[in-house]
Amino acid sequence: MFTPISEIGEFGLIDRISVILGEVANEDVLEGIGDDASVIRIDDDRAEVVTTDGLIEGVHFDLSFMPPEHLGAKSLTVNISDVVAMNAQPRYATLLLGLPGHVSVEMVESLYRGAKKVCDAYGVTIVGGDTTGAHQLTIGVTLIGYAHPDRVVYRRGAQPGDLLCVTGDLGSAFAGLRVLLRQRMELAEEGEGFSPNLESYRYVINRNLTPTARLGFVRQLETAGVLPHAMIDISDGLASEINHLARRSGCGASVHEAKLPIHPQTRTVARELEESPTHFALNGGEDYELLFAIAPEDAEKLDPGHVTMIGEFVEGEDVMLIREDGTSERLAATGWDHFG
Amino acid sequence: MFTPISEIGEFGLIDRISVILGEVANEDVLEGIGDDASVIRIDDDRAEVVTTDGLIEGVHFDLSFMPPEHLGAKSLTVNISDVVAMNAQPRYATLLLGLPGHVSVEMVESLYRGAKKVCDAYGVTIVGGDTTGAHQLTIGVTLIGYAHPDRVVYRRGAQPGDLLCVTGDLGSAFAGLRVLLRQRMELAEEGEGFSPNLESYRYVINRNLTPTARLGFVRQLETAGVLPHAMIDISDGLASEINHLARRSGCGASVHEAKLPIHPQTRTVARELEESPTHFALNGGEDYELLFAIAPEDAEKLDPGHVTMIGEFVEGEDVMLIREDGTSERLAATGWDHFG
Repeated sequence: MFTPISEIGEFGLIDRISVILGEVANEDVLEGIGDDASVIRIDDDRAEVVTTDGLIEGVHFDLSFMPPEHLGAKSLTVNISDVVAMNAQPRYATLLLGLPGHVSVEMVESLYRGAKKVCDAYGVTIVGGDTTGAHQLTIGVTLIGYAHPDRVVYRRGAQPGDLLCVTGDLGSAFAGLRVLLRQRMELAEEGEGFSPNLESYRYVINRNLTPTARLGFVRQLETAGVLPHAMIDISDGLASEINHLARRSGCGASVHEAKLPIHPQTRTVARELEESPTHFALNGGEDYELLFAIAPEDAEKLDPGHVTMIGEFVEGEDVMLIREDGTSERLAATGWDHFG
Repeated sequence: MFTPISEIGEFGLIDRISVILGEVANEDVLEGIGDDASVIRIDDDRAEVVTTDGLIEGVHFDLSFMPPEHLGAKSLTVNISDVVAMNAQPRYATLLLGLPGHVSVEMVESLYRGAKKVCDAYGVTIVGGDTTGAHQLTIGVTLIGYAHPDRVVYRRGAQPGDLLCVTGDLGSAFAGLRVLLRQRMELAEEGEGFSPNLESYRYVINRNLTPTARLGFVRQLETAGVLPHAMIDISDGLASEINHLARRSGCGASVHEAKLPIHPQTRTVARELEESPTHFALNGGEDYELLFAIAPEDAEKLDPGHVTMIGEFVEGEDVMLIREDGTSERLAATGWDHFG
């Protein structure tokens, strides 16, 4: 039998894998497959958080867009973000590199320099790895972090009445990608005479090329004495991530379009492309902001300069978008499916 | 500048990466890049051992040779073997899969079934992973194990006068590979009339397709009260691994050809191919036996049915092979270089 993976998609495949792995018999496994990271109890005071992610040339990135140093940086950042989304401190990383003939020693060095810079910034040590031949540049990162078992925050745990909050702004990484794509097209059309206007789009381009993980915000949460009920980082897009939180928590959610934090440059790019800034914010992805649920009484403890309340969790299972005109609609989890 | 990786090879590349990563400032990192696995101190009673390895279609395996279930099993076994080679207990695994269009849902299920079977046998729990698109089937495994910090055994630590020991037998996995290659050629030549003779080669074929990690032996070491001074698992071949132990330990070694444990089927295959069984044992690779250094007084504590003393560590830096005829020669670290 040959069922193409595209027929059941990534989530269908994960369901099939979960059936084979069965119930985890090990009670030290606090969370297996299904969250941003796995959680293992080491002892009463310490849990270990582990996440692994692959980036493959031609699927996740294009070397003609992304200098190797940025690629090394980004591949660490996205995994650090997964650990941060568990409310844990990232500590150690391993780096698996599959290297095709078109990748030089100098490119590997640049990639490692980018990875090292990010690790230094977040207090992560690269402890090991593997380098091997490959047909496409292949990067596999495993990130290990630690937290007190009682401070780990999962995707499950949001309750009806909780506020839905997000750090930073949404859709800017996607706006940056669109600017880069457009400029490449213009370059191809106009040839050498083309001079790219990068200055007006610096913020969104940086958001795409050098994303940041919100480790600082996790520390703010601790200082403020706030423990979110549920949390996830926004890699696939807000719409997709809200649906994850709601489904895993067994409740519904409402999101208010008017409250979505969107950067002026993101709005400009969307307008220039005659597309909707709301679409960028909901489905753009790769923002690596944190999306989380808190009890309403905790709202005033958080710095409104860093957090926006964009909605609330409700009874039921529907995830709804309340439009600026007052109408509402189901918010589908679109996101990215690399098998699509 | 474009320096092809093949110009400096895998070890040259690792040296360049080590320069970029610099000295590890974190004193909890007991071992970084350079051993079978990295070692992190958790507390005075516990060290964590982490290893990661990539297997890529067309580089490490050929799906027409290796059923997906065997592939899943083998990809876990080789990483479990790396943890075992640190004298640690493997506990948790994450599995990264890059899946091209020619891999079906059923193949992924088989692969996971093989992985699960091996994990169950060694007490390992698969806690997470990532599945994504790719151009070649790509498997990245990260294995986490634990040991008392004082019981971790590194590649460094062998001393002149120590005995060089190996578990099991050598060269059989390579003999199995050669049998499979020969039978595929015969099949191509003779077509449908060809009936493969697998029975006479069952042992060596199994050694190739379903290798085992020597976790049981690590437990024997503990029961016997023996702590090796240095240890490594044989993935690239005995010659290569002895050189690793000697170089990292800052001493030389002598290996006696007459003492190499070689299975009768391995000798048969080598004879049929008019090649040397010693070459199979020294350079075949993928045996996943343990090669280790012990103090001479510990020799009698080990079961001679499981361990063979094949040589000794000596002053200096030369690794020598003492031939059966009494002559001796330098034993070069050939092994496999996937960038070759």
